[in-house]
Amino acid sequence: MGPGPSNVAPSVLQAMSRPLVGHLDPAFVQMMEEIKGMLRGVFQTQNEMTFPVSGTGSAGMEFCFVNLIEPGDEVVVGVNGVFGTRMVEVAERCGAKVTKVEAPWGRIIEPQQIADALKQCRPKLVAVVHAETSTGVLTPVEEIARLAHEAAALFVLDTVTSLGGCSVKIDAWQVDAVYSGTQKCLSCPPGLAPVSLSKRALETAARRKRKVQSWYLDVNLLSSYWGQERVYHHTAPITMNYALHEALRLTLEEGLENRFRRHQQNHESLKSGLAAMGLRLAAQEGHQLWQLNTVTVPDGVDEAAVRKRLLSDFNIEIGAGLGPLKGKIWRVGLMGETSTKENVKTFLRALGQILKDSGRKVDLEAALAAAG
Amino acid sequence: MGPGPSNVAPSVLQAMSRPLVGHLDPAFVQMMEEIKGMLRGVFQTQNEMTFPVSGTGSAGMEFCFVNLIEPGDEVVVGVNGVFGTRMVEVAERCGAKVTKVEAPWGRIIEPQQIADALKQCRPKLVAVVHAETSTGVLTPVEEIARLAHEAAALFVLDTVTSLGGCSVKIDAWQVDAVYSGTQKCLSCPPGLAPVSLSKRALETAARRKRKVQSWYLDVNLLSSYWGQERVYHHTAPITMNYALHEALRLTLEEGLENRFRRHQQNHESLKSGLAAMGLRLAAQEGHQLWQLNTVTVPDGVDEAAVRKRLLSDFNIEIGAGLGPLKGKIWRVGLMGETSTKENVKTFLRALGQILKDSGRKVDLEAALAAAG
Repeated sequence: MGPGPSNVAPSVLQAMSRPLVGHLDPAFVQMMEEIKGMLRGVFQTQNEMTFPVSGTGSAGMEFCFVNLIEPGDEVVVGVNGVFGTRMVEVAERCGAKVTKVEAPWGRIIEPQQIADALKQCRPKLVAVVHAETSTGVLTPVEEIARLAHEAAALFVLDTVTSLGGCSVKIDAWQVDAVYSGTQKCLSCPPGLAPVSLSKRALETAARRKRKVQSWYLDVNLLSSYWGQERVYHHTAPITMNYALHEALRLTLEEGLENRFRRHQQNHESLKSGLAAMGLRLAAQEGHQLWQLNTVTVPDGVDEAAVRKRLLSDFNIEIGAGLGPLKGKIWRVGLMGETSTKENVKTFLRALGQILKDSGRKVDLEAALAAAG
Repeated sequence: MGPGPSNVAPSVLQAMSRPLVGHLDPAFVQMMEEIKGMLRGVFQTQNEMTFPVSGTGSAGMEFCFVNLIEPGDEVVVGVNGVFGTRMVEVAERCGAKVTKVEAPWGRIIEPQQIADALKQCRPKLVAVVHAETSTGVLTPVEEIARLAHEAAALFVLDTVTSLGGCSVKIDAWQVDAVYSGTQKCLSCPPGLAPVSLSKRALETAARRKRKVQSWYLDVNLLSSYWGQERVYHHTAPITMNYALHEALRLTLEEGLENRFRRHQQNHESLKSGLAAMGLRLAAQEGHQLWQLNTVTVPDGVDEAAVRKRLLSDFNIEIGAGLGPLKGKIWRVGLMGETSTKENVKTFLRALGQILKDSGRKVDLEAALAAAG
C-alpha cells in the first residue's frame, strides 16, 4: 500500500516464470503487437507508436524529453511536486530553456497559470504531471492541452500513477507525448514504461537537426523494432513484457470504467474511515487521487515510527512524504490489485491500533463503519 | 541457442513469481547489498560502485559513456563488429570526438593498433568490446588496458557476452568502467545491465563541468540509491533484481572456473562436431568465443531457411549474421544454462538432418562421435 510497486495478480507473477524466447522470435513479435494494441486500449488512443520503453517510468519521462527537445528549445513545465521538478531537471539536461509554472505541493496546476506563462514565451512543448504521486493531487489537463496547442506547442503528459486507475484519454485530450509506469495502477512489476506519441510528436522527432542524445531511447530507432520492420535495436526485456501482456489483459478484462469506479470507491471508503478517526487527506479537495492518498500526519505523532510499525507488525508498506512534505504526510497507495475494500479495512485497523497504542483516542468501530 | 537471451534456470524463473516489495523496503535493501556483493564476485573486482543499471545491456553501454564523456572529449573505440560500432554511435551522441580503431569483422583488435592510435590523439578513454556477439571473437584486453593507462586514459570494456562465460578480471586488468547484460552467460532474463566503475572513473564523473546528459543514468544520483544513503531515485525493477540475485547465486555456486571450463568444453564439442560435418567457425582461430559460435554458412545453403526450420521443426532458435555478415554466418549460443553437451548434440542432430534433407552429404554419426 505504498506509492508503487502495487500488488501483482497471481497470473502476472506466473507469466514471468514462462521460458524465455528471443526478442525477434515470431511468438514474441506477435506478443509485441498484442501489447501495443492493449496499451492503445488503456491509453485510449489510436497512436501507432504506443509501446513500452525498456526502463522504468523515469526512463519514459526521459524518452519523451530527449526525443522532442533540442538544445535551446523553450519548454513550459508545471511543477507541483517531485515529478514536475524531475521533468524540469530532465528537460534542462536536454538543453531546454525551462519556464516553470509552480503551484504549492498538494494543489493542482491551474490552466490560467499556463495561459499566463504562454504570454511570456514561445515553447516547443508544455508538460505537466497528471497524477502527482508525491502529493496525491490530480491536475485536470484537457484545458491545458488546448492552451498548449493554441500556442503551437506540443503537450506532454506524465501518467505514471494515473494510467489504469482513473480516466486517461490521450486522443480526446490531444496529448502529443505520454509516458507511464507499469508498477502503479496496471499492477505489473516495475521495469517498463508505456509511452505513446502522436503523429505530430513523431514528426518533430524525425525532423530534428541533431541526433537524439540517447541512443537507447531514440524513437527513430525504436520505431524500427516496435514497428513493422523488426530491426534489432536492443534485447527487449522479454519476461517483463510477458508480465505486462498479462497485466493489460486483466485490466481490459475488468473494463476501464469498472476499474476506475473500483479505485474511486475504495478511495472514498478510506477517506471516510480516516475522517471518522479524525484524520484528513492532504491534497486539494476536489482533486484528490483515488489511487494515492496523502494523509496529513496529526500533531504529536511520529510519522516514521508509525510507518515502521505498520511494516514490522502488520506487514503493510506505506510511503513517506518527499521534499517539503517529508514528515508531514503518509502516502497510502490503493493502486490496481491493491485497491480493495479489504485492504482499506486492514489498513484502518492497523493504523487505528498504532494510534491507540500511542495514547490517541481513536473510535476504530466508527472508522470501520464509515469505510462501509 | 541464439545470441541471447539464454535459457534460464527453473529457480530463476521461480524467483520472479515472488510477491513484490517496495524499492526502499528493508528486505529489498538487503537484497541490493547481496546483489552488489555477488556482482563484485563475477566481475572479480572490489569496486564499491558495482550494481545493475535498470535497463538492458545497451543502457549499460550508454551509462558508461554519458557519465564519463563531456562534449569535445576525445575517445578511442575499437570497432570489429556491431557493438563497437554502437559504442562509436553512443560516444558521438555524448559529443565525443571519436577515433575508430577498426579490424575486419571476425578478427580481434590488436594492441598495436591501439598503440598506433594513441600516438595520434589524447583520449579521455579507450573502449573495446571484450566478446563481440556479432562475430564470435574474444579480444584480449589486458595489454590494451595498459596502453590506455599509459596514455592517461580510462579503459572502458563491454563484457555483455563474456561475463559469466569466460574470464573477466576487472581489477587485475585495471578496467575503469565495465558493463554487461543479464541475459547471456549469467542466464537471467534481459532487463538489467550490471556495471562497475573504478574509483578513477567515479572521480571523473564527480568532477564533470556539466551535468550528465541522462538523468536516468547519472551515476552521481544512482550512487545515492545503490550506496548507503538510499535516496529514492527511480523505482528499481524489483522482480528483475529477484531474478538476478538467484542467477548470481547459481553462478557462484557452480564456481567461476567450473563455469568457464563448462563453456569451453561445450564449445570444443560443438566445433569438433561441426568440423566432422564439414562446417567451420567463422571467427579468428585462437580467439573464438566459447559462448557464441559463429558458423560459416556453406556455399549453396539458404541461411534463413535453415534457421527457420530449426525453429519450426526442432524448436531451436539460433541467430542470423548482422551487417556485413548477414547471410554468411549462423550464430549459435552456448551461454549459461544453454551451454550443455545435450544441447550441442541436439543442435548437431537437427542441423545435420536439415542439411541432409537439402541434399548435402552429412556424416551425422561421425559428427556426434566427434562431439564426444
